[in-house]
Amino acid sequence: MPEARYDVIAIGNAIVDVMAPCADDLIEELGLAKGGMTLVDTARAKELYDAMGPAREISGGSAANTLAGLSALGAQCAFIGQVAQDQLGEVFAHDIRAAGVDFDTPARAGDPPTARCLIFVTPDGERTMNTFLGASQYLPPAALAEDVVASAAVLYLEGYLWDPEEPRSAMRRAIEVARAAGRKVAFTASESFVIERHGDDFRALIADNLIDILFVNEKELATLTSESQFEAGLAALAGKVPVLVATRSAKGAVAISEGVRAEVAAEPVDAVVDTTGAGDLFAAGFLWGHVRGRSLQASLRMGAICAAEVISHYGARPEADLAALVNGSEAATLP
Amino acid sequence: MPEARYDVIAIGNAIVDVMAPCADDLIEELGLAKGGMTLVDTARAKELYDAMGPAREISGGSAANTLAGLSALGAQCAFIGQVAQDQLGEVFAHDIRAAGVDFDTPARAGDPPTARCLIFVTPDGERTMNTFLGASQYLPPAALAEDVVASAAVLYLEGYLWDPEEPRSAMRRAIEVARAAGRKVAFTASESFVIERHGDDFRALIADNLIDILFVNEKELATLTSESQFEAGLAALAGKVPVLVATRSAKGAVAISEGVRAEVAAEPVDAVVDTTGAGDLFAAGFLWGHVRGRSLQASLRMGAICAAEVISHYGARPEADLAALVNGSEAATLP
Repeated sequence: MPEARYDVIAIGNAIVDVMAPCADDLIEELGLAKGGMTLVDTARAKELYDAMGPAREISGGSAANTLAGLSALGAQCAFIGQVAQDQLGEVFAHDIRAAGVDFDTPARAGDPPTARCLIFVTPDGERTMNTFLGASQYLPPAALAEDVVASAAVLYLEGYLWDPEEPRSAMRRAIEVARAAGRKVAFTASESFVIERHGDDFRALIADNLIDILFVNEKELATLTSESQFEAGLAALAGKVPVLVATRSAKGAVAISEGVRAEVAAEPVDAVVDTTGAGDLFAAGFLWGHVRGRSLQASLRMGAICAAEVISHYGARPEADLAALVNGSEAATLP
Repeated sequence: MPEARYDVIAIGNAIVDVMAPCADDLIEELGLAKGGMTLVDTARAKELYDAMGPAREISGGSAANTLAGLSALGAQCAFIGQVAQDQLGEVFAHDIRAAGVDFDTPARAGDPPTARCLIFVTPDGERTMNTFLGASQYLPPAALAEDVVASAAVLYLEGYLWDPEEPRSAMRRAIEVARAAGRKVAFTASESFVIERHGDDFRALIADNLIDILFVNEKELATLTSESQFEAGLAALAGKVPVLVATRSAKGAVAISEGVRAEVAAEPVDAVVDTTGAGDLFAAGFLWGHVRGRSLQASLRMGAICAAEVISHYGARPEADLAALVNGSEAATLP
């Protein structure tokens, strides 16, 4: 097996986040599911945007956020995702490249436009996301740079993108390519609604030993395992994937690998400004430790530190020097 | 004279700011004039964007920022400015309307795209602006809603927009309309380079008593009066406009009206994050006091409070509740 050219290559949605603070009342008025992610069509996106206060645009997309974090930590990364030939597509491409991530998927001509996610941030820092997938769901299998996939130590896949058909085919092919090259496959479940729709697919991938590292949050774990209790969910899944990482927001996170279990508390933050990207950056920190051969405990701590940074400001991409934060923490002294 | 329907109507550039933190070294490497505003063409804009780190997009434009501040304070405002029919144009239109400002200038079809300003923010919080004017400079005199201009207590004009020909004609016409309706004209000089190019125009407007309220910073005052000393500059200009407001960044501001002089210190801030919009929001606070018939001193204090809010975060539009800040300050107790 040749040495990996990239630490991590990811396939995910190429989204620009449109974010604004809002009162809790507005969430109710608009009939939004607070804290969740909902797919919206053009008409609903317009309705929600019209109801939104003055906003700011910051590149997002779950796996893309994770790569931005990994790159900030020092990892070599590449991203595959579909933008349209429009201004938001240029914004997305600029931001991910400026974060040090290779991104060569050609922009798609014509409609629909680049994906955007309308994010309402309530005073408690919780984000409520409404995603217009646009061009993102038309990532064709042909856009897959197979030599690049084969050259990355880890292939990271975003569950959100399992929903539309073309990217799902691309991801299935990517798994084959990565496996044939002897690489690891990491998967984030993304949202429980994705599991509700594609749980059988995911369980089959797991049963076929095609997922090496699985990221879930508490709710996704419950949906995937049909176990409402956290510990029962862990027990049901732990033996089936080489590395299982379960995040629990303010309650920290657990990782289980080959019978070894490690836990970490959430990193304290002065003020939770915007939780967008918390899971994405947790995955970044964990993967950084993991690809560097660090212990579960150290990897979890890195995840917690990266998540804490991203929830302390608006936007799902890191702003502080993540490498300095991690290297200056006691995570650096763990095995 | 009928009662004014709007407190302030402004004509200005319709710009989306593209902002990123950067090291001082990069400013030098790119040959930028730190702290200034430079007009850039398509090629230079691309070069600078390529060199910029991950950015965020926040609506800007000097006069538009001032209106966003005035609206947050409780004023009724309308904006006239030119965007293109593109995504950044939609972003600008959304944000100004969401700020409570009426904005009805139709978007312009075809090239060039909506204006953007590439803003490099150094660790000291200083912003270095590079503006691609795009559609903004094609505001046609026909876009002037003359009945709206006539119905606003104050017409506020942005010096930046004096540079391109079509908007200059629109502004000249707007001054006539406002004057014919017995309204006041406020003018911000915007940048000393504008005065270098159009100083004769501005001095003629002043000599013809067409400017009632003039906003300048220290450098603009010097350029306009050819007096390098601040006090000499003030003395040269004070008798020529009914209200002169001169801002001096961290040194506070001075206002002179009919022989009365008032001064205010800069409002202390914990940390200057990004000075973009400081002058714009100072103008907002001052005008709010002025249109409400408050004293020069109270109006200056309101300006200082609004400027302090906007430099404490990224972006040139207010984020905190400006009305609460002003009403909770001792400015509320001044005459």
